[in-house]
Amino acid sequence: MQFTSEVTEMGVTERAFDLVVDGDRVPGIIWAPEGAAGPRPLLLIGHGGTQHKRIDTIVSRARTFARHHGYAVVAIDAPGHGERTTPEAATAAREAITARMANRSRERSPEDLRQAGDRTSKAVPEWKATLDAVEKLDFVGQGPVGYWGVSMGTGIGVPFVAGEPRVKAAVFGLSGLRPGAEAFEKAARSITIPIEFVFQWHDQLIAREAGIALFDAFASREKTMHINPGGHTGIPAFEREAWERFFVRHLGSAKAQE
Amino acid sequence: MQFTSEVTEMGVTERAFDLVVDGDRVPGIIWAPEGAAGPRPLLLIGHGGTQHKRIDTIVSRARTFARHHGYAVVAIDAPGHGERTTPEAATAAREAITARMANRSRERSPEDLRQAGDRTSKAVPEWKATLDAVEKLDFVGQGPVGYWGVSMGTGIGVPFVAGEPRVKAAVFGLSGLRPGAEAFEKAARSITIPIEFVFQWHDQLIAREAGIALFDAFASREKTMHINPGGHTGIPAFEREAWERFFVRHLGSAKAQE
Repeated sequence: MQFTSEVTEMGVTERAFDLVVDGDRVPGIIWAPEGAAGPRPLLLIGHGGTQHKRIDTIVSRARTFARHHGYAVVAIDAPGHGERTTPEAATAAREAITARMANRSRERSPEDLRQAGDRTSKAVPEWKATLDAVEKLDFVGQGPVGYWGVSMGTGIGVPFVAGEPRVKAAVFGLSGLRPGAEAFEKAARSITIPIEFVFQWHDQLIAREAGIALFDAFASREKTMHINPGGHTGIPAFEREAWERFFVRHLGSAKAQE
Repeated sequence: MQFTSEVTEMGVTERAFDLVVDGDRVPGIIWAPEGAAGPRPLLLIGHGGTQHKRIDTIVSRARTFARHHGYAVVAIDAPGHGERTTPEAATAAREAITARMANRSRERSPEDLRQAGDRTSKAVPEWKATLDAVEKLDFVGQGPVGYWGVSMGTGIGVPFVAGEPRVKAAVFGLSGLRPGAEAFEKAARSITIPIEFVFQWHDQLIAREAGIALFDAFASREKTMHINPGGHTGIPAFEREAWERFFVRHLGSAKAQE
């Protein structure tokens, strides 16, 4: 793990890093309170398809958790995203998903599904390697770990969380069970940690039944599905506050620990 | 409106009152911060079937809103409930609902439905008269009004809120759309205020489809359905906190106003 930059703003230090996993460079960012020392809750954030590790919503969420609750927060670029793609390919991917949303196309092409499978296969060990690496940092340590990821962040997050006992609570959403996705379904059915599952009632990409089936699949004793009107990109702002309370309820707060 | 008792505990004053509506005595309670003066948000709480205005959960919620947010909170006995029934009839009603839950009986007898219809027809003007009366109190005034009621509290609350423009936000739940309940469905479809709708995924009394249909019916631009595993009486404790934030988001807090 190699740090490539560091900047502190309003009490939060943001460090960019590179990690090499299976020969691939995985670029990431870790946020923590300025001058943080000792173990603290860690939140892993998986971005959505066509997004990257440093989109506005991730930066804002990371700063909130670091500033209000003393968390460390990590985001990495998924395979084929962010610094791991070209501007041309990123534009093409955004146009493809925009077209699918406009057409309310819930079918995914065989090529799209194959790419998603390959991406997940790479992304899961990358998250594990990232968690291994950041836990060795003195300002992170082996505190409780949470995962936040919707849409593609759930596609990758479900198999990652299913195989990662260090993750104690997760927010998933904007995703569903697809007939034929046996490995994904099996992973979902093996998850027992508390889950908050956010779903958009008019999602152009995911049928209501598919979303409800995924919520049903989680074996967690504590799981809540939050359904809101609107499309795939329209999660209401007040859900952010709900995520904050969900993670603090399950992972605690570094401020209270110190 | 006649006050019949007053007691102050840990900064919250609880006053019992009687109101006469259409010749019937309607007993109620109003909670407010000790020494409260001037207008403040008002929360109306409708209890569930077989319950009454002063069950533990209502007292605890009332004190929370008064103490943390400076609210006034009102609960009244629904027709045939609390002080408006005999101990024998209350026991029989509790036994009947316990048996329905044990049998997962979602059918309601014609007699049960007739009684519920009569009860709602009386309860709606009683809530309106209660709101008229408490708004005249100097420590309540014409501040923003919210309604909280699940199960029978939704059965009565939906038609009440549909016809009451003073109510600006409502928590409903543990209820559904029943084929043939046209007036109830019409009332739900006319509601446009923010709604938080809580539903138990293994409710013994309400089918999932019926609950989802009721959530769907609300015409509100902002509405959220919170689905949790478990039966009719098992809403998880963390939802209480969500209700607090929901009402404070929409009705504000008297502390901030003062």
